[in-house]
Amino acid sequence: MILINDHGMVREVRLNRPPVNALIAELLVTLREAIQAAPRDGVRALILSGAPGRFSAGLDVPLLLGSDRAAMAVLWRELYALLHALAASPIPIAAALTGHAPAGGTVLALFCDWRVMAQEDYKLGLNEVQVGIPLPPVLLGALRRLVGSRQAERLAVSGILISPQEALRVGLVDDVAAMDQVIARALDWCQRMVALPSEAMLATRRTARADLLHLFEVNLEPEIQRVIENWWSPSTQSTLRALVERMGKKASS
Amino acid sequence: MILINDHGMVREVRLNRPPVNALIAELLVTLREAIQAAPRDGVRALILSGAPGRFSAGLDVPLLLGSDRAAMAVLWRELYALLHALAASPIPIAAALTGHAPAGGTVLALFCDWRVMAQEDYKLGLNEVQVGIPLPPVLLGALRRLVGSRQAERLAVSGILISPQEALRVGLVDDVAAMDQVIARALDWCQRMVALPSEAMLATRRTARADLLHLFEVNLEPEIQRVIENWWSPSTQSTLRALVERMGKKASS
Amino acid sequence: MILINDHGMVREVRLNRPPVNALIAELLVTLREAIQAAPRDGVRALILSGAPGRFSAGLDVPLLLGSDRAAMAVLWRELYALLHALAASPIPIAAALTGHAPAGGTVLALFCDWRVMAQEDYKLGLNEVQVGIPLPPVLLGALRRLVGSRQAERLAVSGILISPQEALRVGLVDDVAAMDQVIARALDWCQRMVALPSEAMLATRRTARADLLHLFEVNLEPEIQRVIENWWSPSTQSTLRALVERMGKKASS
Repeated sequence: MILINDHGMVREVRLNRPPVNALIAELLVTLREAIQAAPRDGVRALILSGAPGRFSAGLDVPLLLGSDRAAMAVLWRELYALLHALAASPIPIAAALTGHAPAGGTVLALFCDWRVMAQEDYKLGLNEVQVGIPLPPVLLGALRRLVGSRQAERLAVSGILISPQEALRVGLVDDVAAMDQVIARALDWCQRMVALPSEAMLATRRTARADLLHLFEVNLEPEIQRVIENWWSPSTQSTLRALVERMGKKASS
Repeated sequence: MILINDHGMVREVRLNRPPVNALIAELLVTLREAIQAAPRDGVRALILSGAPGRFSAGLDVPLLLGSDRAAMAVLWRELYALLHALAASPIPIAAALTGHAPAGGTVLALFCDWRVMAQEDYKLGLNEVQVGIPLPPVLLGALRRLVGSRQAERLAVSGILISPQEALRVGLVDDVAAMDQVIARALDWCQRMVALPSEAMLATRRTARADLLHLFEVNLEPEIQRVIENWWSPSTQSTLRALVERMGKKASS
Repeated sequence: MILINDHGMVREVRLNRPPVNALIAELLVTLREAIQAAPRDGVRALILSGAPGRFSAGLDVPLLLGSDRAAMAVLWRELYALLHALAASPIPIAAALTGHAPAGGTVLALFCDWRVMAQEDYKLGLNEVQVGIPLPPVLLGALRRLVGSRQAERLAVSGILISPQEALRVGLVDDVAAMDQVIARALDWCQRMVALPSEAMLATRRTARADLLHLFEVNLEPEIQRVIENWWSPSTQSTLRALVERMGKKASS
């Protein structure tokens, strides 16, 4: 479900679950283990990338609608564990958004150190509300850190998907590039990080990211419980089922 | 003192105290009651608007200078109660700044969800310092949430009035429009909010606005006492009296 | 080591330690005493300026490499005491960045009220990481307040020096001007502050800067101890020695 590609001391971890890198528990676990293994393998910086045109479509909603409560609880716990691993990574991580990155696609990027997005007609954003899911507080906290309280409120409540250019303007991404340059740009960023005096860079990074990590240093169990309960609310279920129906019609037309 | 105009599930509450919608206790109470009544009437989003060219001139300084301490205490308590009602509103509120919005005019907008301003030669800003009034901490907290600490310090300490374009640039408003389009733009924003999956939108909105509401979840009595005391300080009184004298000369010339 | 130049109620304090206004303990003490003496002399606003082309090169690294532990401890304690004095100043301070302002040069400006930078090919930024020094948390806190969490992380971790134009764009400075206009621009800002109703301006300023002052209202002793320890780490020492060697070659070529 992932591909590993080492460029010297920089490791690219590429999401590889065709066709749209939709997130399921197995992928979340595999990805977290890859993030956590990298520093032990001597890797000094990470790139998190996706397929050309498709970074990740977020959670695999069609599959999830057939899941039971136990499976949903596993999925959300694993998503939180992955986000925690990204926030706590002892080495820098660049998100190379190689294409569409709605919902969970953008969420992964929020917890990385730096984000570059393909500049074509791709979209990103936290459209959870549009599909009937309240944006969980930890995700909103990570968003607010990047774009400020006002833009975080606007983006999260409206659930809009935005262009790479608007994302750059509001601070949701740090750079945009032609699609075939996105990974090269992320690699360049990683190499500049690796070239810095290591102890000073890593210590400053810990200080600068302490507020992000702090989001996980409270008891998140009540939040996760609420997220799981919300999933089963009648309004969320009906919105998600209507979404999947539209996706089905689109795919078959 | 206010006009009510329903557009389907969106209600417009228009300030209507000619000539400049100056704020007095009675208007503050009427406005708060209208904000609080709307959700009970089945309204799903609110527009707070003013007269063409005049959103609100803020507190009615000429009138207030003739008030006694008891009346001033009532006024400030009612202002805080209104701001709390705006921050705590269970439904979204768009501020339609249809014209000049100095001081209290801008203050009301800080606690709404979204702000659109008429793009002509109108001004807005927190010019309390210019008229001798220290900006109270709760107001500064709401300002900081929209524009960040640096711009909040700059705007609050200098007390400058700014153009709609500069307000858009720094984040004090979210949109600008021709004056005759301001209310239509606010209505459009409200209708987009209402069209979203309701439970998810409202829950995300509560999360995103928790920091704003938190400003009211401490004992504000000491702050309100200081605000009232400041009003009676010799320097504030002499600055306000000079202001009213200039206003009188301008009006009679 | 400093020059004093009074313009009515505004006092300019000019760093005067040729050739590059490198900071040593004696200069830090002199500067702090000047900042603290000004309000007692009836001064109503301060300008902190440097030499044309050189605001300050930051800490005097070549000299410091020959210092013992006791001298380094004094230096860092005096730097923190100066930053505290800037943050706690009862009167506004404009930083007139008359030229290059790397590392400590930028640090001083973070704790002032307002910053104007010469627009020529000068650079500023927090390049501590580039020279092997982790950016201390208090400095990062002051940076974050000006530019937000995302830009603070980017600037601090990468340790890049940036142009005045980019500094203006991200909020690290508030204005840019031709070099021979920088002090005039700062004086103009100070005079506008002094012209405001004094009590209201000063009270609002205290409210708006409470978050900056709060950085010093915790026990900073553990942080200062870590900063001093870091200075003597083998990696910091070797990076600094390589830097000084490059500076020597450049100077003699």
